[in-house]
Amino acid sequence: MIEAIGLDADDTLWENETFFRVTEAEFAALLADHVDGDVTARLYDVERENLARYGYGIKGFMLSMVQTAIELTEGRIDGHAIARILDMGHDMLAHPVTLIDGVEATLDALTGRRLILITKGDLMDQERKVAASGLAGRFASVEILADKTAEAYARVLLRADVAPGAFLMAGNSMKSDVLPVVELGGHGVFIPHDMTWAAEHADAIDHPRLHQLARITDLPGLVAQIEGAA
Amino acid sequence: MIEAIGLDADDTLWENETFFRVTEAEFAALLADHVDGDVTARLYDVERENLARYGYGIKGFMLSMVQTAIELTEGRIDGHAIARILDMGHDMLAHPVTLIDGVEATLDALTGRRLILITKGDLMDQERKVAASGLAGRFASVEILADKTAEAYARVLLRADVAPGAFLMAGNSMKSDVLPVVELGGHGVFIPHDMTWAAEHADAIDHPRLHQLARITDLPGLVAQIEGAA
Repeated sequence: MIEAIGLDADDTLWENETFFRVTEAEFAALLADHVDGDVTARLYDVERENLARYGYGIKGFMLSMVQTAIELTEGRIDGHAIARILDMGHDMLAHPVTLIDGVEATLDALTGRRLILITKGDLMDQERKVAASGLAGRFASVEILADKTAEAYARVLLRADVAPGAFLMAGNSMKSDVLPVVELGGHGVFIPHDMTWAAEHADAIDHPRLHQLARITDLPGLVAQIEGAA
Repeated sequence: MIEAIGLDADDTLWENETFFRVTEAEFAALLADHVDGDVTARLYDVERENLARYGYGIKGFMLSMVQTAIELTEGRIDGHAIARILDMGHDMLAHPVTLIDGVEATLDALTGRRLILITKGDLMDQERKVAASGLAGRFASVEILADKTAEAYARVLLRADVAPGAFLMAGNSMKSDVLPVVELGGHGVFIPHDMTWAAEHADAIDHPRLHQLARITDLPGLVAQIEGAA
C-alpha cells in the first residue's frame, strides 16, 4: 500500500520556471548593448558554479545575474543596470502563484490520502507560494529542503514514519523528484513539464518503480494501479 | 517536566553576528570614497525593508549591500566595487564555525535530554554550519525556520508532539527565541550575547516563565531548578 504521497511544487503544482525564463530574457536584453555572445549560457554556468554556495531559489539567481553582468562587461556595468537586475528579482519574488491545470481535481481525487508537499529553494519564497496557492490545507506536512537527495528524502520519511516502499513521489524533475526516491526503494513518478531547468535533467532509467505520466490528473489512477498490483 | 529543550544556533551555540559586523565595516570602508554619511545606518534600514522579501541570512544581506551601494552613490558605483561586495558575501558563506565557550560542556550535561536545534535563515547556509559544528548528533532534530514566530514554534511543537508547557527554548534573541515561546506557554531563556543584531532586540517582560542566564553553561542548572519547583 502507498501510505504517503509526496508532491513537488514548482512546475508540478504551480508554474515557476516560466518566471525564470522571462527574467533571463529581460537580463539578456539588458546586457545586449554591452556584450557580444551568449548571455544566458554564461548565466547558466555561473548559476551552476554557485549552486553549492547559494542553493536553489530566486535570491541566488539574482546574485548570479549580478555576477554574470559584472564578469561579461569586465566591470563596466553601472549601478543603474545592476539596480534593474535587483528590480527583476523583486518582481520574481512577488509573482502570482498560478496552479497547473488539473491540480485541484487531482488533490480532490486524493482526499483522504496522506499528502506531503516536498520542495526545495528559498524558505521564505516557498512558504509564500504555499500560502498563496491556497493548497496548504491539502497537505499533512510541507517539507522545504536545501536539496532533494536520497538522504534528504530518507530524513523526511523517517520523520513521517513511512517506509520507503510505501512512499510515492511525483514531480517534474527526473533528477530531484524521481531518481533519488527510486534509489531509496520508493516509487518515483515523472510528470514532465514543458519548461524545466536544464540542471534538473537526468536520464531516465528502466525500473519497475519508475513511472511516467503525461499529466498530474493521471496520478490517482496510477496509485490505484500500483496498489492493485501489489 | 521539561520534555524538550530548544536551542538557538547563531550566537547561542556558535559565533555569527561578528561576521556580519566585520563585513559591514569592510562595506563602509569600500563606500567611504564615494559617500558622505552613515553607510551602516542606511544598510540597516535597507535590510529591515527587505526582511519580508528576503527573509534572514547572508544572501539577503548581500543583496541589501548591493542595493545600499547603488542608492547611496545614486548609481555611480561601478561593477568592480559590486564584485567586491559579492566577494565579501562569499567569504561570509565560507566562514569557519566557532563554538561559543561552554557549549560542548553544556550539551554533555544535557545528555539524555531531547534537544532540538531551532534556527532561522538560509537553509543551505544553516545546514552547512550545523554540519561544520560537529554538533548535529547531539540533537534529536534540526528545525530551520523562515521566521521564529509563536506560530512557527507551535508547528515545531506539534511535529515533536510536545506540549508548550513542557518546552524550554534558549537563545540570544529576546524577540525570536524568548518572547514567542513564553507567549505560547513555554519557558523562554534569554542568554544575551555581546553582539546581537539590533533588529533582534525587544524589551523584556516580567514573567515567571521568562528566565535570563549569563552564560549557556548555567542552562542545565536552570532546567533542574524549574523541574524541582514544579
